[in-house]
Amino acid sequence: MWLRVSCKLAFNIELSTPFVLMLRPRSGEEQWIERDEFKIAPNVPITEFTDHYGNLCQRLVAPKGNFSIHTTSDVKTSEFVDVDFDAPFVEIKNLPNDILCYLLPSRYCESDRFNELANAITANVNPGYSQVFAIEEWLRTNISYIPGSSEYPISAIEVNYKLSGVCRDLAHLGIALCRSLSIPARMVVGYLHNLYPMDMHAWFEAFVGGRWYTFDATQTGIKGGYVSVGYGLDAADVAIFNQFGPVAHSLQQSVSVIQIKN
Amino acid sequence: MWLRVSCKLAFNIELSTPFVLMLRPRSGEEQWIERDEFKIAPNVPITEFTDHYGNLCQRLVAPKGNFSIHTTSDVKTSEFVDVDFDAPFVEIKNLPNDILCYLLPSRYCESDRFNELANAITANVNPGYSQVFAIEEWLRTNISYIPGSSEYPISAIEVNYKLSGVCRDLAHLGIALCRSLSIPARMVVGYLHNLYPMDMHAWFEAFVGGRWYTFDATQTGIKGGYVSVGYGLDAADVAIFNQFGPVAHSLQQSVSVIQIKN
Amino acid sequence: MWLRVSCKLAFNIELSTPFVLMLRPRSGEEQWIERDEFKIAPNVPITEFTDHYGNLCQRLVAPKGNFSIHTTSDVKTSEFVDVDFDAPFVEIKNLPNDILCYLLPSRYCESDRFNELANAITANVNPGYSQVFAIEEWLRTNISYIPGSSEYPISAIEVNYKLSGVCRDLAHLGIALCRSLSIPARMVVGYLHNLYPMDMHAWFEAFVGGRWYTFDATQTGIKGGYVSVGYGLDAADVAIFNQFGPVAHSLQQSVSVIQIKN
Amino acid sequence: MWLRVSCKLAFNIELSTPFVLMLRPRSGEEQWIERDEFKIAPNVPITEFTDHYGNLCQRLVAPKGNFSIHTTSDVKTSEFVDVDFDAPFVEIKNLPNDILCYLLPSRYCESDRFNELANAITANVNPGYSQVFAIEEWLRTNISYIPGSSEYPISAIEVNYKLSGVCRDLAHLGIALCRSLSIPARMVVGYLHNLYPMDMHAWFEAFVGGRWYTFDATQTGIKGGYVSVGYGLDAADVAIFNQFGPVAHSLQQSVSVIQIKN
Repeated sequence: MWLRVSCKLAFNIELSTPFVLMLRPRSGEEQWIERDEFKIAPNVPITEFTDHYGNLCQRLVAPKGNFSIHTTSDVKTSEFVDVDFDAPFVEIKNLPNDILCYLLPSRYCESDRFNELANAITANVNPGYSQVFAIEEWLRTNISYIPGSSEYPISAIEVNYKLSGVCRDLAHLGIALCRSLSIPARMVVGYLHNLYPMDMHAWFEAFVGGRWYTFDATQTGIKGGYVSVGYGLDAADVAIFNQFGPVAHSLQQSVSVIQIKN
Repeated sequence: MWLRVSCKLAFNIELSTPFVLMLRPRSGEEQWIERDEFKIAPNVPITEFTDHYGNLCQRLVAPKGNFSIHTTSDVKTSEFVDVDFDAPFVEIKNLPNDILCYLLPSRYCESDRFNELANAITANVNPGYSQVFAIEEWLRTNISYIPGSSEYPISAIEVNYKLSGVCRDLAHLGIALCRSLSIPARMVVGYLHNLYPMDMHAWFEAFVGGRWYTFDATQTGIKGGYVSVGYGLDAADVAIFNQFGPVAHSLQQSVSVIQIKN
Repeated sequence: MWLRVSCKLAFNIELSTPFVLMLRPRSGEEQWIERDEFKIAPNVPITEFTDHYGNLCQRLVAPKGNFSIHTTSDVKTSEFVDVDFDAPFVEIKNLPNDILCYLLPSRYCESDRFNELANAITANVNPGYSQVFAIEEWLRTNISYIPGSSEYPISAIEVNYKLSGVCRDLAHLGIALCRSLSIPARMVVGYLHNLYPMDMHAWFEAFVGGRWYTFDATQTGIKGGYVSVGYGLDAADVAIFNQFGPVAHSLQQSVSVIQIKN
Repeated sequence: MWLRVSCKLAFNIELSTPFVLMLRPRSGEEQWIERDEFKIAPNVPITEFTDHYGNLCQRLVAPKGNFSIHTTSDVKTSEFVDVDFDAPFVEIKNLPNDILCYLLPSRYCESDRFNELANAITANVNPGYSQVFAIEEWLRTNISYIPGSSEYPISAIEVNYKLSGVCRDLAHLGIALCRSLSIPARMVVGYLHNLYPMDMHAWFEAFVGGRWYTFDATQTGIKGGYVSVGYGLDAADVAIFNQFGPVAHSLQQSVSVIQIKN
């Protein structure tokens, strides 16, 4: 399916402020960007680089006053996410070298503290995809998804204590649980078609059966329409913007996803 | 200055044919891509990856029959290329690690065979930018620039024998001469504003005074308006398309560069 | 100075267990490895790869029973660490692209929660090296360094609550404090000459004045004799061994560092 | 099998001369370096970096006078090279992204000019391993292997004209022929057990059936005992030393390979 995704951010900046943005989806195996626009106003100098994880990052110094960013892309992505309950657990010794880092604990995914819970959730479940599915189901049942309920990222431990969270929070707990079972897992931020209320979204992927599979405890039923903007260990790696210095309050963040073709 | 660059390729394909394309300029220190479109017809699956040199490469299998690619980008680039006759030669021991590969001979730049000529051209010239400038001037004077005069890349040795060539050929000889003096040099393909006749273009960069400078023996006077699409050791690395199997004759290759803003 | 560093690990393994090791120091700008040995017994298959941060990592599956690893290297390193109280804070916009990741919060360095404390510690201090020095001094004064006092990594928040820790813990808190001031900081594990009691060691580096400087709150006075084995955001990235499955208790970990030449 | 490989180079240097060396084998999937020594005299500053292809490269400035390098490694490598006449040709569209560069023509492998010859050599041969084997056999029959017969690299075209060459030359022609058939091929330099006369060696690898296979037209019968030091497109990428400035004549180059364990 073809989606037109768009994000508009507007700030009022008190003091000239450096930003690192992650707002340009890139083409890869899973999605193709046919058209892409990235506009800033005023038109200050901007550069782009690629981080560790292959994400496109934009750097600029926002000037004092009103500052806005408007990105839009036409993306071909899958209408359905792949599902395979038979995808087996990949033994550590068979994991590709560049997947190993997704087993490590990270800022918001303290996987080193979740072994007991993960084992309880996945008792009597076949190793692999089915374990991750059990985790996803457990999150759906036990952690209330409350969009807009938190401003800044909290960690899996905090989410598990609070028992509710935004999409990012559910993903953090899902990732921590997977990794504690030695299943590589990573965070994805991006867009989701028909998300309600519409906003930037976050979900996670787990590596089973030799490839990455998409999981999203905020949604019921398994659908597609995902557009990835950034991959990383957790929200620390995939902030759609990092700003440095006095906090620049976002005046506006509007996101849209519309289907433009089949 | 803001340029809208565009390239349209049309093929008639006899047999389903794999292509690797390099037709998407990327944002970096020197240019910013504000808008980008990359359309293919028919809409076969296409993926993208980044090569050794940081270039964006697109892979697809063109189906039998008519096949076309249409790319366009709005790019902010400099109106002038930087010039600094005082930029000194960088001693080998002070070159950054990732620049060293641009000293090596390559397919079309047999720098290991040009030491004598390079020394003759740059006798009595200060080491550094001025040497590269002397090489550029020597090319302008001694190698006739004849757009459209060759179909496939020839090497610096062949260019030096033939005494004429297309933009790519002049760049190859310039690069070989620089490297033979231990000045790192690389090939660039892309677009040039006001190029006549309009087409994809090729030029070279030399690393002196701690950074890359642009050189182009096909042009007189020093102007800007360059948009880079690919960097590499020579034309082998930066073909705008590589196709495999029976040659797919290009029915049409049309290129345009227009200025859209100051 | 020339050091011979050595680490011997012995395990009794209950069940065949995958390991990822980080026990081979590598040559770089700061140290040169003249001789290196890496022996395992029994001699199971072992491979090596390089991670995100450039660290050499070894993979193997330890068999049931006794398993040992013995590494030793002859290393040329500096007798003194560089000190420059005038090295200035590097503005975010001037940081190299590949340094930006060292500003992010990480598993054991929750820099997003330390802004207030960092500002208090560095009030009235010149931005840059002097800020990091003030943090190092504060750690020395306020966090008791108790070698061997913890088995597994704890985070900066936990260290700051506990007010004591091992080398790794002090480094975590130091890193979190630096990053909260927008100073890039990274963890280093390796060897230190004359460390008492001798063991593998951990310290941190901060990026000021355009380069990395070494800091180590566990030591008084500024000395050299450091040999790096791994770099990363924090202990999650630089475990000298990660093992998966049932915990393989280390029977022995013996480390030695002797000076072999000036 | 376990081999102890060693290379000693001695130079008399007229003028202080920058060197880039490639003389440290690295551990990977195919070989494990248990012990490694890299000694230079006099003991000038030396640093190490990793190039595009993952090779370890050492940089130093050799001082005026006598200068020597002595490297030795204990390496576990296979006693036999893998052979699989059924390994199929990998269609371009199925090649991994990072293998594609090994299809390109390069300095000494003008694969763009060998299509006819390669087709003649492999007529009636199954696509894949068998094609490369036919090329290897053709080289053995048609190009005389004369160790020590050339000082500097010559290209596949030149080798094919001269009909004789050193190991490097045969590899260049073999690589050019493979690539002209769209089979990825790369150059390897290193050591070979029982090579006669003993010296540094060069051979090539071709990518068929989803992995790299070793080919060496200088040897009859298929044996193992290979230790890789560097990989690249051709000899331009894998010189065991590159020196810049007035040629420093090698006074001595002695190489040894002995078996130390089964």
